[in-house]
Amino acid sequence: MALHFKQVTIVGVGLIGGSLGLVLKRQAIADTVVGIGRRVENLKTAVALGAIDRFVLDATEGVRGSGLVILATPVDSYERHLKDWSASLTDGTIVSDVGSVKGALVEQVERLVPENVHFVGAHPIAGKEKTGVAASSVELFRGTRCIVTPTQRSNPEAVQTVSRLWDCAGATVVTMDPFVHDQVLGAVSHLPHVAAFSLMTALGDIQESTVPGLKLLGYGGGGLRDTTRIAASSPEMWRDICLWNRENLVKMIEVYEDHLARFKRQISTGDGPSLEQAMDRAKHLRDQVG
Amino acid sequence: MALHFKQVTIVGVGLIGGSLGLVLKRQAIADTVVGIGRRVENLKTAVALGAIDRFVLDATEGVRGSGLVILATPVDSYERHLKDWSASLTDGTIVSDVGSVKGALVEQVERLVPENVHFVGAHPIAGKEKTGVAASSVELFRGTRCIVTPTQRSNPEAVQTVSRLWDCAGATVVTMDPFVHDQVLGAVSHLPHVAAFSLMTALGDIQESTVPGLKLLGYGGGGLRDTTRIAASSPEMWRDICLWNRENLVKMIEVYEDHLARFKRQISTGDGPSLEQAMDRAKHLRDQVG
Repeated sequence: MALHFKQVTIVGVGLIGGSLGLVLKRQAIADTVVGIGRRVENLKTAVALGAIDRFVLDATEGVRGSGLVILATPVDSYERHLKDWSASLTDGTIVSDVGSVKGALVEQVERLVPENVHFVGAHPIAGKEKTGVAASSVELFRGTRCIVTPTQRSNPEAVQTVSRLWDCAGATVVTMDPFVHDQVLGAVSHLPHVAAFSLMTALGDIQESTVPGLKLLGYGGGGLRDTTRIAASSPEMWRDICLWNRENLVKMIEVYEDHLARFKRQISTGDGPSLEQAMDRAKHLRDQVG
Repeated sequence: MALHFKQVTIVGVGLIGGSLGLVLKRQAIADTVVGIGRRVENLKTAVALGAIDRFVLDATEGVRGSGLVILATPVDSYERHLKDWSASLTDGTIVSDVGSVKGALVEQVERLVPENVHFVGAHPIAGKEKTGVAASSVELFRGTRCIVTPTQRSNPEAVQTVSRLWDCAGATVVTMDPFVHDQVLGAVSHLPHVAAFSLMTALGDIQESTVPGLKLLGYGGGGLRDTTRIAASSPEMWRDICLWNRENLVKMIEVYEDHLARFKRQISTGDGPSLEQAMDRAKHLRDQVG
């Protein structure tokens, strides 16, 4: 049977929420897509782009009668949102999300949703340096992976529905325990973000202290551009992600610190063979990056 | 007067040397381009691509009669090369390079070249993840910067000739003291490389220790791909660069370590406002990256 909803609500119509709205509309998965947000201008843009059919500022009204509600806001706001409107959800409604952390967050959400509502966590690994609904695209998820994170409490049919949704969006769906998800994403996404944010602020200090007269950052080539691209990500969103996954992340930063210290030692002592060997290991590992 | 040489020799015909050869030939800056290298297969490819006219394995023969000799090998090999063939250079020959470090390296080269030969250091800030002559392109330098690093010992006409060469290649030429060059590039290029190499080996360890059954690195999105792209750079080349610029680089790694430790502290203590503020600073600095 085709995947179909009379109404879907997207809470937070940014790049990901907007792109999912486009998928829901273009593939006729939803008859009506309702957007909920804070900024009217942004919601008007979403309507103009066809990502949502209409928007409401009153979330309680916006979720009423929807068979699927997608949380696409910074993860720290889930609690506030759910307390606000989860009592207005219809029996059997599926609540899902697109957040970059799972683990403890999924536990929190499972405590907050009413018994008659099914929560299924999902994390489409997609994005670009641009944010906002204006950058959204029906193709955003094509060829990417989406991690769906069921728990023992999850309704199997709801898990299947959410998986089919991301399959329709063109993503390869992978199922994973929410806490394993946070280990995996802590390593391949959260740690690289912290590395890039730190590199950028370090370069800011180096610029001021070393060559104050020179616009240092203008001298970077493609390497600097690539390495720091994710430092332009949303501070609000990444603050939340780092704090929700802090236990894994702090441990991983420490592993990174060890490796950085080792490279520093090899450089300062002039240990060319060890340095080359470590770089060679890095090069080979880089080939595994998907 | 048009820039013109009867013969130019390129020592080390890889991505940069090969691309420069293409520029020299297409713009008729050189009647003949001679390539010197270690691997015959590579040199044959360079001939087939039109990057060089002919190659020799005997460097002494290859530099004889050339008005310009470009060192495009790993910087640690300059000494060996110059000792090998600098006595065979014709009076007035210009020797230049494309190396990513200058400072002490330029001092070394100036000590090694005969009095009748003019050395001018140059560093085209161009490259891509692919290496080797097969990836070379006449467009590689277009829109990039090339830093030319004259010293008090430099011949002004030779400096002008090398600057014109890179201007013809489509680069914006910037003149800089060799030691300032190393501070600037240490910050915007060498430090990011060390950050990327360390991140990659740290992720290798995390993969083994945290989720050994999972091909962790396959779960990265575009962020991981971009952040670690330069970790695929040549270990041999980067070993040399890091060691030649070790004094600046070690200091800069220490600044980076401080910033990383600060982010870690903000995350582990749950200091959301400071964390967001630091990420916001990173985001704004990222806008200055050229």
